[in-house]
Amino acid sequence: MAKEKIENAENIFDVVIIGGGAAGLTAAIYTRRKLLKTLIITLDIGGQNLLTEDEENYPGYTEKSGPKLMQIMYEQAINFGTEFVFGRANKIEKTKKGLFKLTLSNGEEYLGKTIILAYGKVPRKLGVPGEDKFIGRGISTCSTCDAPLTRNKTIVVLGGGNSALEAAELLTKFATKVYLVHRKDSFRADEVTVEKVKQAKNVEMILNSTVVEILGSEKFEGVVVENLNTHKKTKLKLDGMFLEIGYVLDTELVKDFVERNELGEIVTNKSTETKTEGIFAAGDLTNGPFKQTVTAAGEGAIAGLSTYNWLMKKQGKAAIKADWS
Amino acid sequence: MAKEKIENAENIFDVVIIGGGAAGLTAAIYTRRKLLKTLIITLDIGGQNLLTEDEENYPGYTEKSGPKLMQIMYEQAINFGTEFVFGRANKIEKTKKGLFKLTLSNGEEYLGKTIILAYGKVPRKLGVPGEDKFIGRGISTCSTCDAPLTRNKTIVVLGGGNSALEAAELLTKFATKVYLVHRKDSFRADEVTVEKVKQAKNVEMILNSTVVEILGSEKFEGVVVENLNTHKKTKLKLDGMFLEIGYVLDTELVKDFVERNELGEIVTNKSTETKTEGIFAAGDLTNGPFKQTVTAAGEGAIAGLSTYNWLMKKQGKAAIKADWS
Repeated sequence: MAKEKIENAENIFDVVIIGGGAAGLTAAIYTRRKLLKTLIITLDIGGQNLLTEDEENYPGYTEKSGPKLMQIMYEQAINFGTEFVFGRANKIEKTKKGLFKLTLSNGEEYLGKTIILAYGKVPRKLGVPGEDKFIGRGISTCSTCDAPLTRNKTIVVLGGGNSALEAAELLTKFATKVYLVHRKDSFRADEVTVEKVKQAKNVEMILNSTVVEILGSEKFEGVVVENLNTHKKTKLKLDGMFLEIGYVLDTELVKDFVERNELGEIVTNKSTETKTEGIFAAGDLTNGPFKQTVTAAGEGAIAGLSTYNWLMKKQGKAAIKADWS
Repeated sequence: MAKEKIENAENIFDVVIIGGGAAGLTAAIYTRRKLLKTLIITLDIGGQNLLTEDEENYPGYTEKSGPKLMQIMYEQAINFGTEFVFGRANKIEKTKKGLFKLTLSNGEEYLGKTIILAYGKVPRKLGVPGEDKFIGRGISTCSTCDAPLTRNKTIVVLGGGNSALEAAELLTKFATKVYLVHRKDSFRADEVTVEKVKQAKNVEMILNSTVVEILGSEKFEGVVVENLNTHKKTKLKLDGMFLEIGYVLDTELVKDFVERNELGEIVTNKSTETKTEGIFAAGDLTNGPFKQTVTAAGEGAIAGLSTYNWLMKKQGKAAIKADWS
């Protein structure tokens, strides 16, 4: 993207939120209700809530499905006018004009006057050549989101836990062929889920193996699988790959802008401010004492309103006060 | 209640939560999921959310009705096993055994190992003799909760704003006769609501007047109304009174136990701890930067889990940690 293009005012957001889970979506609901031009950059919608069908303790919600709850929040954020880009933010820089420039793993750039960090734990990377380039364009970390796109396709799922096996089971219902690649010869997933996957006719399991290379220059074309015992390498021609190898806290991206504690969590105050003016943080990646959907949402709301106050203050306008004084 | 009775272990709660709005109900959901014996003492269910039918920004909830949202949270708290007492906590003392003794305005006493303060803003008191004694037993501050109890009764509503007029309108559908007493000769409420009340056949408006005395010794029997211009006093024989004269922040109750800021708000840290061990605070009465349903709920969840951790630590057991380290 040319420099003049990205510095065009139309491409400058009042706030760029990184992360589309409970914290990020709630922050967006609040910034959009204040009519701030809001972009969410995220790998998925829902974050870790995509992994639970047992959401019993979110106040005001009794359906128990984490993904459904996230879908409602997503629709609220959409309905209030939030813009979304699906991808991984790879770099944050401050421009001479005092804006924040975010570069995605695919090279796209976005400018924000403020940033709300709300990406919680992130899907673990495999760490092989070509991976960054194809995240969101052939490589997915959200089977719940992307399963319907795999109709008549051949795909591979990587991983051996419950989320990998549940993803494989779901994908067998859409894709023509599902490879399941796992480093070991048995699965950590619950036996009942493993059995369901084994019974599917369009699954081929490749055990004691991992993916060591992504194929394709412009377009994702497949992977190279290596058997960890024999070291034999095999090329698989594919339409897509689903990474289901766990979640990690990764705040390296922002280490120059924020203070981090010994766990790598971002240190915030009660207003969700970090040590950098204009950068706020909310949800599971902060040093909040507990990691719950409702605590993430609460912090998201505070981040949204703090961002608004910060922008107003910069413009010399009055901030929001609590409704008594 | 005799002293031996209240110090009976059956009457000692692990946690007594004062307040039944978003913060208190969420705290109870969390303490009950940890199986702590939990009591909520409250004047109403829902607090200030009872006043809104325009709840657009609670993430995961799209029905907009504040009271309905609170009803869902109430049912969650009930279903997990929370006990409820309706009344006003009037005094908190520390016993020799290190418990907290709460005395209600009607004289009932409850003991808690810990307290979560979550009563937000509270209905403003009228400040006349007999009021404390009959709160919850003839005097209601929650027309939405108590309207169905006024069938075939004669009641008075006090106030002149939207909540008073909306209460009066609602109550005309249940009660035989509704007096509306207001200090001025016109209402602050929206004209459309005022008109609806005026059209009801079972309403009698008493303007330029206020209630100066509550009648009844054992049982609420009525009020004395004084005309503020003529100073003429009139007795009204009644079954109930609805106070709709606004909400205030009132932390006098706990001033010996907590630090308060210049607004009277209770100062808490990120774990919702106050300056007194075993007393936590959440929601609108804390020094959190914004007063929103979701921020109150988020703080309630933290208070519930912090209380659990505090009790476990006292017993020498391991606290909850976040799910990574």
